[in-house]
Amino acid sequence: MPNGKISMAVIRRLPKYHRYLQELLEKDVKRISSKELSEIIGFTASQIRQDLNNFGGFGQQGYGYNVEELFNEIAKILGLSKSYNTIIIGAGNMGQALANYTSFEKFGFHLNAMFDINPRLVGLKMRDVEVLDMHNIKAFLQESPTDIAFICTNRDGAQRVADQLVEGGVKAIWNFAPVDLKVPEDVIVENVHLIENLLTLSYFLKGIAKK
Amino acid sequence: MPNGKISMAVIRRLPKYHRYLQELLEKDVKRISSKELSEIIGFTASQIRQDLNNFGGFGQQGYGYNVEELFNEIAKILGLSKSYNTIIIGAGNMGQALANYTSFEKFGFHLNAMFDINPRLVGLKMRDVEVLDMHNIKAFLQESPTDIAFICTNRDGAQRVADQLVEGGVKAIWNFAPVDLKVPEDVIVENVHLIENLLTLSYFLKGIAKK
Repeated sequence: MPNGKISMAVIRRLPKYHRYLQELLEKDVKRISSKELSEIIGFTASQIRQDLNNFGGFGQQGYGYNVEELFNEIAKILGLSKSYNTIIIGAGNMGQALANYTSFEKFGFHLNAMFDINPRLVGLKMRDVEVLDMHNIKAFLQESPTDIAFICTNRDGAQRVADQLVEGGVKAIWNFAPVDLKVPEDVIVENVHLIENLLTLSYFLKGIAKK
Repeated sequence: MPNGKISMAVIRRLPKYHRYLQELLEKDVKRISSKELSEIIGFTASQIRQDLNNFGGFGQQGYGYNVEELFNEIAKILGLSKSYNTIIIGAGNMGQALANYTSFEKFGFHLNAMFDINPRLVGLKMRDVEVLDMHNIKAFLQESPTDIAFICTNRDGAQRVADQLVEGGVKAIWNFAPVDLKVPEDVIVENVHLIENLLTLSYFLKGIAKK
């Protein structure tokens, strides 16, 4: 098992390994060399060997990797042997879309509740999960310890929501609001800034147009 | 205006500058030093000066940056002085959520149509935009040149959709399907791999639990 520091770059590549290995498992592939893995995943073979060595190295000279073993090991490293309690704050478009992603459940992320301040949304249900009144978030978090909160509010509400979550003991925030949240050091934030993605596309498109 | 190569890292930071400068404009801030900008945006002042020098350097010694000028210049660099025709393929949860994001319109990204293969979705309307039958995509692209397509299909359908888009002349794809698309070199793909984001969170959560 991992010891010491693993670089952020390696950590960011792990979910990709996980995804490709899952596809191989579905195709009933039993073993794979770093060279073959390199061809499908797009990283170099030496990069792959280096990455996986970080976690103890599962390959065997002349055999390659046992797909199922490697998949299970990476899943464990990614924390997928546990399950996680999640909530969604903001039951608008994005909140609803995320609530309907059944694939999150398959990975062990269980959605326990949604919250909104809009009275017209409170009481609605998405896949058996009810939208609760945001005013009750404090009591909810006391009764139902929550691992991950998805923030799907607008820009202006997001920081206040984050403060309430942190106060309620939430240690991981998946933030879809277009704002950089200020949180204590022991709280993890992962951002999905859609507009920033889209602007990268327009930047490159502009380049094409000029040619 | 920019000449030569600008690094991907700089390009990725530009939308963030754009966002913070917009907020400053809304607060009616007229000018700002790289030091002040550094405090709100979180990059170092020297990083900021270096980044902006890539584009000709807009700051003046002892004055700092004119917020409006810098904002407009960055918007131009990001290609926001143009408008873009977009379509969404896949009118499920994520497709619908993106269709309802009115902020994309404000940045000049106009949604012209949505497509799906599901007959139950074809004919629906999201904000005046109709869901069309995916079988008609070829004819549509011939009549309505499209700059950016958002792929919001499931994993298995995504590559085939990408092929059809490329054939129809689409030069930029915003891909939400959990798959790495194969496209010609002159086509830009920007991925939003939600599951990979979420697994990064669980990786770090696992670390916290162990402490």
